[in-house]
Amino acid sequence: MTNSPRRLDLRNGRVELSHGAGGRAMAQLIEQLFVRHFDNQWLAAQTDGASLPLPGAAERIVMATDCHVVSPLFFPGGDIGSLAVHGTVNDVAMAGGRPQWLSAGFILEEGFPLADLERIVVSMATAAQVAGVVIVTGDTKVVERGKCDGVFINTTGVGVAVPGVNLDPANIRPGDAIIVSGTLGDHGMAIMSQRENLSFETALRSDSAALNGLVEAMLAAVPGVHALRDPTRGGLAAVLNEFARAAGCGMSVREAAIPLRPEVTAACELLGLDPLYVANEGKLVAVCAPADAPRLLDAMRAHPLGRDASLIGHALADERCFVEMETAFGGRRMIDWLSGEQLPRIC
Amino acid sequence: MTNSPRRLDLRNGRVELSHGAGGRAMAQLIEQLFVRHFDNQWLAAQTDGASLPLPGAAERIVMATDCHVVSPLFFPGGDIGSLAVHGTVNDVAMAGGRPQWLSAGFILEEGFPLADLERIVVSMATAAQVAGVVIVTGDTKVVERGKCDGVFINTTGVGVAVPGVNLDPANIRPGDAIIVSGTLGDHGMAIMSQRENLSFETALRSDSAALNGLVEAMLAAVPGVHALRDPTRGGLAAVLNEFARAAGCGMSVREAAIPLRPEVTAACELLGLDPLYVANEGKLVAVCAPADAPRLLDAMRAHPLGRDASLIGHALADERCFVEMETAFGGRRMIDWLSGEQLPRIC
Repeated sequence: MTNSPRRLDLRNGRVELSHGAGGRAMAQLIEQLFVRHFDNQWLAAQTDGASLPLPGAAERIVMATDCHVVSPLFFPGGDIGSLAVHGTVNDVAMAGGRPQWLSAGFILEEGFPLADLERIVVSMATAAQVAGVVIVTGDTKVVERGKCDGVFINTTGVGVAVPGVNLDPANIRPGDAIIVSGTLGDHGMAIMSQRENLSFETALRSDSAALNGLVEAMLAAVPGVHALRDPTRGGLAAVLNEFARAAGCGMSVREAAIPLRPEVTAACELLGLDPLYVANEGKLVAVCAPADAPRLLDAMRAHPLGRDASLIGHALADERCFVEMETAFGGRRMIDWLSGEQLPRIC
Repeated sequence: MTNSPRRLDLRNGRVELSHGAGGRAMAQLIEQLFVRHFDNQWLAAQTDGASLPLPGAAERIVMATDCHVVSPLFFPGGDIGSLAVHGTVNDVAMAGGRPQWLSAGFILEEGFPLADLERIVVSMATAAQVAGVVIVTGDTKVVERGKCDGVFINTTGVGVAVPGVNLDPANIRPGDAIIVSGTLGDHGMAIMSQRENLSFETALRSDSAALNGLVEAMLAAVPGVHALRDPTRGGLAAVLNEFARAAGCGMSVREAAIPLRPEVTAACELLGLDPLYVANEGKLVAVCAPADAPRLLDAMRAHPLGRDASLIGHALADERCFVEMETAFGGRRMIDWLSGEQLPRIC
């Protein structure tokens, strides 16, 4: 038994919601269809963005893309517009780039209110300004009523690579420290509570935010960070399993060290969800040498988006690439890939 | 009366198919919503792609994006996969860039056959290889059955700007020559004949192709080309009106000089369409100084994708920015922006 996906049925199979959920089925689809046919080193690396050499220049540029299909379009703490900016800015930052430019591609459903579209566009403009990026090119398509769901937005980001930084998760070594930048599951549970019409004493809000400033501060403090990733679809569990596979090692985390808001824990219990699999849009997971961990934590905690940063565990030698958790009661359990479609259209 | 769009009803209006059709309504939406709120020089230029200065480097990079929602997904001469590569490669080339890297963002409908998806992915991979670009990063989202229409694909392209080239249509001067690279309307009529189940003695095929090689040859022959654009949605009529507005001049073309396949003319007559408004995916419109026109035409005709290049008219002084055509019978008619949704989901 190893931590790797099964074969896709390319003859008779059909697309399932799980193929977009950030878990094992998505990894299958990406590897056995896209990586296989597009066949190049950048896709094969399976990072959040590609770091590309400019002919004749010393700089590298970083490129990342994200389609946004979140439902509902407006939610506490954000909307599809701010999310579309944050998601791609974060992917460029996680791949070691300073995000500078975004493209925006809109697929609009006939009949969608222009007032809602303007609200989304204003939200994108504000999010871009806060993140320090410019939306330089775009495209708009309209499909007939019933052929999409209001608005889908693709954003693609380009930035210049921070010199000397290498964030390939293959860098991860046994003993490395695993750090999360703050509370987990806030985005996913804000969306779910909106969908399910749940109300709690403290309102659940998405954590959607641009992390490029936090990453800048982290790389200034510890240029040798081994890997960064934002735990979106599939949550922390997906990131730890991706890291484990890429590095060929195991991961061990302590449940008690994982920051969770009480209202997120409560909502997860009510809906039967595990917060480790729930999407975040303003958090990151960093892996660094154990000696660098205190400095990295200090730099993170000094930034508003890293105040609750926590060292949650470490990498370890394990050929099976398993991810394990030491529970609050002292037991151990496997953190496997998400295997179903837990939360469709969360981003 | 001037050649400029009316006001959008942002309070009570709704998205209409015409907002995506490449005509006047689309120009309205882009200017009054996207350009206004995103507010920057690149979007304001309303070119097919943005030419961006890299900090600390002499090079500029060019970035362009396109969402593809074509229906049907497979058509004579191509499919949504090859189209997604060609569309974006061409936009980068029209903005003066040598396309190098593409991102690919997929929105998939639950239940879509994996075999069809693989066919599309293989077609993208082949088109990318022929065009000399690499698909370096991607994203996959899945939406519930009935929430999209099979597959939508966003591609975003990045390339390095060809040094010394400036393709801003504001460069266009009265007297400039207007050249098209070949027959018009082939893509749109191939899609329409598939939709309407028309059959002709000669099958209609899309002209979908990557034009970066042709553009390379053109810029080598005439580096001072004033403007380039591929007449996709809205056809030649849209490009001429966009150029006229950007340059603040008029345009005059001769019907007899516009290359059209007889089967396209026949299909247009049957369906009541005007070929000047029909989409192309492997053609371009170039504007250059009159003295450069013979050299540019020679370079184009020497390339397989420019064999049928034709000088169709010229720019002229006209504050109203009108586009006129001298008909085959010696009369004159206005070529206005497309005002309805003539051909939804053509690309």
